[in-house]
Amino acid sequence: MTERPSPTELVRSLPATVPFVGPETQERERGRPFRARLGANENGFGPAPSVARAMAGAAPQMWKYGDAQNHDLRNALARHLSVGAENIVIGEGIDGLLGLVVRQYVEQGAPVVTSLGAYPTFNYHVAGFGGRLVTVPYRDDREDLEGLLDAVKLQNAPLVYLSNPDNPMGTWWEADAVEDFIDALPPTTMFVLDEAYGETAPQSTLPALDISRPNVLRMRTFSKVYGLAGLRCGYAIGEAETIRNFEKVRNHFGMTRMAQEAALSALEDQGHLHWVCGEVEACRQRLYRIASENGLTPLISATNFVTMDCGRDGAYAMKVLQELGKRDVFVRKPMAPGIDRCIRVSVGPAEEINVFEAKLPEALKAVE
Amino acid sequence: MTERPSPTELVRSLPATVPFVGPETQERERGRPFRARLGANENGFGPAPSVARAMAGAAPQMWKYGDAQNHDLRNALARHLSVGAENIVIGEGIDGLLGLVVRQYVEQGAPVVTSLGAYPTFNYHVAGFGGRLVTVPYRDDREDLEGLLDAVKLQNAPLVYLSNPDNPMGTWWEADAVEDFIDALPPTTMFVLDEAYGETAPQSTLPALDISRPNVLRMRTFSKVYGLAGLRCGYAIGEAETIRNFEKVRNHFGMTRMAQEAALSALEDQGHLHWVCGEVEACRQRLYRIASENGLTPLISATNFVTMDCGRDGAYAMKVLQELGKRDVFVRKPMAPGIDRCIRVSVGPAEEINVFEAKLPEALKAVE
Repeated sequence: MTERPSPTELVRSLPATVPFVGPETQERERGRPFRARLGANENGFGPAPSVARAMAGAAPQMWKYGDAQNHDLRNALARHLSVGAENIVIGEGIDGLLGLVVRQYVEQGAPVVTSLGAYPTFNYHVAGFGGRLVTVPYRDDREDLEGLLDAVKLQNAPLVYLSNPDNPMGTWWEADAVEDFIDALPPTTMFVLDEAYGETAPQSTLPALDISRPNVLRMRTFSKVYGLAGLRCGYAIGEAETIRNFEKVRNHFGMTRMAQEAALSALEDQGHLHWVCGEVEACRQRLYRIASENGLTPLISATNFVTMDCGRDGAYAMKVLQELGKRDVFVRKPMAPGIDRCIRVSVGPAEEINVFEAKLPEALKAVE
Repeated sequence: MTERPSPTELVRSLPATVPFVGPETQERERGRPFRARLGANENGFGPAPSVARAMAGAAPQMWKYGDAQNHDLRNALARHLSVGAENIVIGEGIDGLLGLVVRQYVEQGAPVVTSLGAYPTFNYHVAGFGGRLVTVPYRDDREDLEGLLDAVKLQNAPLVYLSNPDNPMGTWWEADAVEDFIDALPPTTMFVLDEAYGETAPQSTLPALDISRPNVLRMRTFSKVYGLAGLRCGYAIGEAETIRNFEKVRNHFGMTRMAQEAALSALEDQGHLHWVCGEVEACRQRLYRIASENGLTPLISATNFVTMDCGRDGAYAMKVLQELGKRDVFVRKPMAPGIDRCIRVSVGPAEEINVFEAKLPEALKAVE
């Protein structure tokens, strides 16, 4: 065997994991494109035309590194949210920010609490920095706030993760339940509240922003309703010192100039946001109907996807997903025991939902 | 004092460092823009018009996450370089890739060898993952290959960094010297060879690509001659297993779709690349002349900047830089003892060089 540099003990222990297999990868393996791209909770209604124009206008300026302080975008967000610019850090999507949070708060071997079957990319980062995942099963298809809290206290965990509204189930907790959870948390436990789907949820879902708590980080993104997943731009809102600590570990020139420009422009076009939210709601209603007409039980959703209970076990739901795939429909599914009986279908433009509507009965028939 | 989550022991030990203060930050502090942006080694000649058009065309598709495998770009680079796609990993600029390399190979407390005054962002990552920097002074304004090798062996270092051509001096080693260095390295030491400025160097500078060595990573970028610094797209070329190991730690969906599209398009427009290289060479000649006419000694450069010896000590060169700044000229300077007597001026369009030419005599007069 050739002598070679040895990765660290931690890195040697890691599998070459990919949290998700992307649709392009699947398309290359299949040898043909999907006709309905409804698996990644993207926003097929697209970014605002005003934002596309802003990107085109900014393109010739891409020879300049982006502003390392993300000054304009941070300040625009601060005004939009009525917090200070010192309460916001911008990152390469929530994915990138999650990695930075784990790196900041998780010593090797430390317990990190999340729900069993929640966001795989968070788990990837926890493993990648040597944390020990402590998982709490979903309860009635919602993340179990009481169970998460018990696990945090039992383990004295430095970090706990919750997405509200939830991915992959689309369910949610009302703001007062989340506030009770926050009040009950040990002040030494960092709480990541992932609100990627916050804009499509009922208004009663998001707690008021409280930037006085050093142990709460609210995460939001331009990847969903703003339609900019391909530009990687997310942000965290928190107490000033908690936010300032990101300066120690973040890649200061890591945010693309294009993402900063596009996000700024997207934030200014709230009309498009409202239009998208309307389309999302209409499409959710249509997906509920399609599910019901086919004997599946839709979960009422606060997100840009609808999770559908296939009514049998995980193996059955997996076959449904595979048969949809054979028919050029890309969807995903929850994988953990208890929630794996479902498939998860993103909202999208009518033509793609039409394909799903046409192919779902065929897929269900094929697995009978 | 409020109880709060405690960062890890390592993170607590880190300063809230920023490797560079960006020009936008300086402009905000100054209260007015620079007239000549010649400090960040960007490519003021810009991306190709064909690439700007590609970006504009891709903008409406930014609702899709980027391809996690970066398949098309990796394959295009593989063809361009005559290596396999399995020999290439794409990252968020060389900056992002450097962080991933340090994370993979540096245990806390392990020695990492670099030159004193070389790339601060590399040092930032080494500190950030708990490595111990071992620095070797420049020798005759070049990185000291012999000194670096001695330090690696003395310290049994798992990682050594060299940029060739060099930043911040613009000097370079011929390929055979670099190959001798590689041959002499312990096979267990990972060697990062940063070739960000490779395209503007004499052809004899870059060693032939040898993807059989598990301990060499060649890093290149679309930020310099391709004019896409603001999109963050770099790549590393190496032996297949070394490249595969990045899968364990990289942020798989971290590359923007826009960067992948733009880089692919840039690679196809080699005509623009050649034109830029011609402009860079012409501008270097002009900068040599301007330096000489003002009593400074230009260092012959293989990069897109010219480093100029101000002929006195570091404090004097710093004053020259400050006086240029007061006159709306943004340049940077080497900071380490021995090389800090210089200022570093990026090439750029004629109108910006004109400003530098007009303001340099004034700045020198002001510090007399």
